[in-house]
Amino acid sequence: MTVSQLLKERVRYAPYLKKVKLADELIPLFKHGQNLGWSGFTGVGTPKAVPEALVKHVEQNNLQGKLAFNLFVGASAGVEEEAWATHDMILRRAPHQVGKPIAKAINQGKIKFFDKHLSMFPQDLTYGFYTQDRTDPTRYLDFSIIEATAIKEDGSIVPGPSVGGSPEFVACSDKVIIEVNTATPSFEGIHDIDMPVNPPFRQPYPYTKVDQKSGRDSIPVDPERVIAIVETTERDKVGPNAASDAMSQAIAHNLVEFFRHEVKQGRLPENLHPLQSGIGNIANAVIEGLAGANFKNLNVWTEVLQDSFLELFENGSLDFATATSVRLTEPGFDRVFGNWDFYKDKLCLRSQVVSNNPEIIRRLGVIAMNTPVEVDIYAHANSTNVNGSRMLNGLGGSADFLRNAKLSIMHAPSARPTKTDPTGISSIVPFASHIDQTEHDLDVFVTEQGLADLRGLCPRDRARTIIDKCAHPDYKPLLTDYLDRAEHYAAKHSCMHEPHMLKNAFKFHTNLAEKGTMKVDKWDPVD
Amino acid sequence: MTVSQLLKERVRYAPYLKKVKLADELIPLFKHGQNLGWSGFTGVGTPKAVPEALVKHVEQNNLQGKLAFNLFVGASAGVEEEAWATHDMILRRAPHQVGKPIAKAINQGKIKFFDKHLSMFPQDLTYGFYTQDRTDPTRYLDFSIIEATAIKEDGSIVPGPSVGGSPEFVACSDKVIIEVNTATPSFEGIHDIDMPVNPPFRQPYPYTKVDQKSGRDSIPVDPERVIAIVETTERDKVGPNAASDAMSQAIAHNLVEFFRHEVKQGRLPENLHPLQSGIGNIANAVIEGLAGANFKNLNVWTEVLQDSFLELFENGSLDFATATSVRLTEPGFDRVFGNWDFYKDKLCLRSQVVSNNPEIIRRLGVIAMNTPVEVDIYAHANSTNVNGSRMLNGLGGSADFLRNAKLSIMHAPSARPTKTDPTGISSIVPFASHIDQTEHDLDVFVTEQGLADLRGLCPRDRARTIIDKCAHPDYKPLLTDYLDRAEHYAAKHSCMHEPHMLKNAFKFHTNLAEKGTMKVDKWDPVD
Repeated sequence: MTVSQLLKERVRYAPYLKKVKLADELIPLFKHGQNLGWSGFTGVGTPKAVPEALVKHVEQNNLQGKLAFNLFVGASAGVEEEAWATHDMILRRAPHQVGKPIAKAINQGKIKFFDKHLSMFPQDLTYGFYTQDRTDPTRYLDFSIIEATAIKEDGSIVPGPSVGGSPEFVACSDKVIIEVNTATPSFEGIHDIDMPVNPPFRQPYPYTKVDQKSGRDSIPVDPERVIAIVETTERDKVGPNAASDAMSQAIAHNLVEFFRHEVKQGRLPENLHPLQSGIGNIANAVIEGLAGANFKNLNVWTEVLQDSFLELFENGSLDFATATSVRLTEPGFDRVFGNWDFYKDKLCLRSQVVSNNPEIIRRLGVIAMNTPVEVDIYAHANSTNVNGSRMLNGLGGSADFLRNAKLSIMHAPSARPTKTDPTGISSIVPFASHIDQTEHDLDVFVTEQGLADLRGLCPRDRARTIIDKCAHPDYKPLLTDYLDRAEHYAAKHSCMHEPHMLKNAFKFHTNLAEKGTMKVDKWDPVD
Repeated sequence: MTVSQLLKERVRYAPYLKKVKLADELIPLFKHGQNLGWSGFTGVGTPKAVPEALVKHVEQNNLQGKLAFNLFVGASAGVEEEAWATHDMILRRAPHQVGKPIAKAINQGKIKFFDKHLSMFPQDLTYGFYTQDRTDPTRYLDFSIIEATAIKEDGSIVPGPSVGGSPEFVACSDKVIIEVNTATPSFEGIHDIDMPVNPPFRQPYPYTKVDQKSGRDSIPVDPERVIAIVETTERDKVGPNAASDAMSQAIAHNLVEFFRHEVKQGRLPENLHPLQSGIGNIANAVIEGLAGANFKNLNVWTEVLQDSFLELFENGSLDFATATSVRLTEPGFDRVFGNWDFYKDKLCLRSQVVSNNPEIIRRLGVIAMNTPVEVDIYAHANSTNVNGSRMLNGLGGSADFLRNAKLSIMHAPSARPTKTDPTGISSIVPFASHIDQTEHDLDVFVTEQGLADLRGLCPRDRARTIIDKCAHPDYKPLLTDYLDRAEHYAAKHSCMHEPHMLKNAFKFHTNLAEKGTMKVDKWDPVD
């Protein structure tokens, strides 16, 4: 077939040009039940042409549920996987997802989803843990479909705006399909790739600074395994970011004040430590807040960079940022590409095994900031399941960072609305209805009401502090009442370490399910 | 004062010999509310003379509650801290404890206890997180009391059978008291000490093999800060180990079969990976089981070594073991000292920051095995609080290992007795009443009934597998009934990811509290 001039420029390994195919030509290769790995992370850098061709094929031939796959992607894969979920094309999915159709299918029990720490997922895949019917470590996956923005002279893959789990997928795939994206500029030079090495041969990661690189700027692949090169001409679609508001700005303010205090006390250096920040309007507000706070020489070691970081770069506060994904809006990408010489030496994308690795997060003393669904009075946090059972997006890297950071911080509004009550949901509950982060891993909790510093406190002091500093006024009396009664019960039964009334522990949640608000009328009697 | 010949031989730094004191002479130094660090880990290597002198002083002068301290020890400190708890001499305590008097005081609300990952605790202490009223990082603690078995020519401390948190305590103490134990042989040559280095200066730990050493065989200390040398002549007191029984041997058998299968499938090498094993009769049975299983060239990277490992060394299965503590009985220590030339090249003791470090555990691909209080059907585990609130010993290193191991394994009897019902407590419950380890961190659960391989399973499949393979027959119908009903409810409410009936989630536990058994008669209605 004819190969476009743009594609020829991007593919510098000539033998691949003989393997250029249209996505439609590849459809016969795909069989029900195969294991697939996709590039992509937080909806950017995902393959597009092949997944879309398969959707059309399923749609036109009514193959919903009959041509479906075990789909592994580093994190969420954006609109392409939404279309797959809509057409019942996913049997099993890990380790993270975003988008209504896929969450719906999971919550209907149609997709077998398991979420896993993002740093561990690709590693465990290369261990063969998720494909136990296979014993050849180079064939755990049937296909990897990897988006590239260029191919180097040795046939290796230059990814786009995310690295994610691609190095591991390629390493354990029988066959590899490369989608070369010619609509986006080449990202060559911005990546630093570590290929998987498993025990007992694994060596220390050498990184002691955020800008340190190991030297490999592409993903090596055995050209024999590359069965097709497909050109794609679609850019990534990232929706606009949620704007900050008074609530999220108040949280940011509380955090900035805390950082200033820690610097003053000598517990943080003046340029803080490398920052990790999650996704969402609070995370954006925090980054905005830092942009206006006159910190200098900041660094970022995180999993995903969003538009809000650009301001921090451009006003001179931020020296360097590394992540596994730059999830920018189209204007955001244009801003970076329009100023490429400025940005190219300030950004580095690594595999998610490295960006989220406990080893490096702990060594660098990262400051981790994430938003939970809820926390409980003793500082256990729920990051994934609303009312205990309804999956949102998955764990992501929250535990990779919170568990290993020097400072583990969670931020949330103190209350959220329901249909009938503007403060129907308290972010602070007696007992978290699902626990992804334990009390042992949270140093600081912050809401628009205030900041609770939990370091070194015993559980009962932690509970009083969280309620006092962070709870919404509508819930302070209720939470205090729960704690008072729990302590009364525990004093009688000699279990004062972390007092609970298990009979009433989920009363906030059952009340919410039944009455649309967490405002409990009365407790069940305990004695 | 007169210095014994034995002490002179052990203390090779002459200026210290002028600082030799009796423990009683030091009593006036101690004031209510001071911050103290003790050497010791799992009850061995703790200071003895000074803590005992202080107990006598408190007892004789009725100072209970009036001369009390914030006490930091690497893990549990044995009989010395039991006596302190009995005499109300502990205000605050972290990060772990063992012994009835101290657990009792915690559960009565008299001691403010917080448990913390053992790898993190000493680090966070050096960050100043637990002593926020102080800003001089070399004076967060008032005193460290460190047991030594020798002093080198430069005044540095050669510890005894544990390293624990001593390097960090010494680094952040205003003054240091060294107890030189002359009743036990010198442990010189068996340690490998990393002193704390904090971000942004921290470097990779170089260890890629269990027997690799960095070269420092003692804890450096500024001699100016050493205010006293005290001789002690008491050995550590470790009670006899719980013997294995049919139940624990069945668990060991199930595990050994699993390891053989993993080797056959190519997911583990023939000598497995470095092993971590907790404390208790199941852990002992597992090590005994391995001793009879013909594995060769095994290695151990763990936090504490017990007597059961000696057989594994002596029958030629085990090449090398490293830990932060050798917690042996007196006959066990005699066995090691009687065969010192054999053992000295097969053992290494490191700080708990290193033995339990996520960086190394993950790099080496450790196989972690620990015993929980209970697990729930979705694989969340409770390691610390009985019925949600009653503290046992603390988290210890369980999460350090489970969270970072290649294979995270928990083992427990399927049921335990209560006063009125020989199977009144099920180790598998609908919802863990306290969560220290999340569903994201458990690969394998094993009871005497069987082994559940949870890798890559979605929560609902995990639940069926755990109930099917591991639950006690008395509880299989009840757990299945809970899950069936929870799925029925979740299907109606579109929350099928991890189905629960929150109203009944703790019914096993409330039934136990009220009726002495987890055998629930009926569920509360849900719709």
